[in-house]
Amino acid sequence: MQIARISLQAGPRYAIVDRDTDEYVILAGDPIFQGLDTTGQRVPMAGTRVLSPVIPRSKVVAVGRNYAAHIEEMGSTAPENPLLFFKPNTSVIGPDDFIVKPSWSSEISYEAELAVVIGKPCKDVPIERVDDVIYGYTIANDVTARDIQREEEQWSRAKGFDTSCPLGPVIDLDFDPTDVGIRTRVNGELKQDGRTSQMIRPVPELVSYISHAFSLLPGDVILTGTPAGVGTIRPGDTVDIEIDGLGTLSNQLREG
Amino acid sequence: MQIARISLQAGPRYAIVDRDTDEYVILAGDPIFQGLDTTGQRVPMAGTRVLSPVIPRSKVVAVGRNYAAHIEEMGSTAPENPLLFFKPNTSVIGPDDFIVKPSWSSEISYEAELAVVIGKPCKDVPIERVDDVIYGYTIANDVTARDIQREEEQWSRAKGFDTSCPLGPVIDLDFDPTDVGIRTRVNGELKQDGRTSQMIRPVPELVSYISHAFSLLPGDVILTGTPAGVGTIRPGDTVDIEIDGLGTLSNQLREG
Repeated sequence: MQIARISLQAGPRYAIVDRDTDEYVILAGDPIFQGLDTTGQRVPMAGTRVLSPVIPRSKVVAVGRNYAAHIEEMGSTAPENPLLFFKPNTSVIGPDDFIVKPSWSSEISYEAELAVVIGKPCKDVPIERVDDVIYGYTIANDVTARDIQREEEQWSRAKGFDTSCPLGPVIDLDFDPTDVGIRTRVNGELKQDGRTSQMIRPVPELVSYISHAFSLLPGDVILTGTPAGVGTIRPGDTVDIEIDGLGTLSNQLREG
Repeated sequence: MQIARISLQAGPRYAIVDRDTDEYVILAGDPIFQGLDTTGQRVPMAGTRVLSPVIPRSKVVAVGRNYAAHIEEMGSTAPENPLLFFKPNTSVIGPDDFIVKPSWSSEISYEAELAVVIGKPCKDVPIERVDDVIYGYTIANDVTARDIQREEEQWSRAKGFDTSCPLGPVIDLDFDPTDVGIRTRVNGELKQDGRTSQMIRPVPELVSYISHAFSLLPGDVILTGTPAGVGTIRPGDTVDIEIDGLGTLSNQLREG
């Protein structure tokens, strides 16, 4: 089952994606908190604007350097512990929203990442029980002001500016994150082409580790690192991130 | 005027602090969003539990190395730009709540800080207009796992664990942050004794700079750096942070 958040005239609504009829089946509330009761309303997928499928109430926790080939291309080394940083909820945008280049950066990069959506309040979760607290999976772009990342010790500004966290298009509740393809195309040209099986630390290990660092709340999002192939985009460029089974997250960069 | 958030049997409530009668005057809603309408109810201050005066919906943005004498004691240098990092809202606790030592750290430090509470959604605020977006001021303790901070490049875990952001006891709406005393006592012994006038970048410059990095939302909190005198605390130790005009924020460390 896949969940989307869509924009209707009455306001944003959560919905189940019905691919048999190409319709959204509107839900009564936020499914993470209120379950999957439907209102009976159906909306055609064609022409409907899709929003970020989740707005984190607390945090996006992201993991740096979790794919060996990406560590190599950055001339870096694997961290001893998972390298964690935060992206604020003000950085979240949805599919087809513009990534807006801040005036203070001249080098914006994409980073395709598998995103985990947390479904339950939790802390100190053992590796073998992370499935109990995971709500589902979506796609993220960990947009980075690479020049600022090089200049500043802490990555808050480089990775936390408004629009630096595209999420979507859907949350998949039955997804197996073990070994799927994850690809980025810029203006149609293939730039990243990895598999989630290349993660140094796989999803269960990451979620468990992060839950030992911070309490996680429903709607928190974990970004699991990017494979090799990152690079600079320029205003007008379109980034398409595709993960097998999760669809494609597409965003264009524009000047601020 | 000073605002507190207190625990009543009916649940948490916001209140105006009435020092003439030593009472809390209960407000109808969250004053940042719903103004200062009162319910008519009054509660004696004595025996009433005080909570964190604000729960950030989006973020706590903290500033590193903003007092020269603290930079010196850390053997560090002043950053070219304000050094920004995030503390998640899951790290926030209130007055008299326990700071809980994570099992993965053996060196916990206090850091007394003046905290700014944002009152309006804003972005790119000029220095001369920051007062328009500041709701008020409170006290913060930027509790830090110093051993982890030394070991890890990003400070998320060292400064973002649960209970690492005590806030309170009140938000003062008429406070002048320019030049007031800020002190820390550990078990009654004076450890930090600075003045806010020693900030390398004063409050208006910080708020303006941070609003150029990220959109700020009502209830976001900005921590403005700590003066010299940081040090290690051990389970059982009590940290009292006092800022002239804002009262005292008191928290005890305990084992996790």
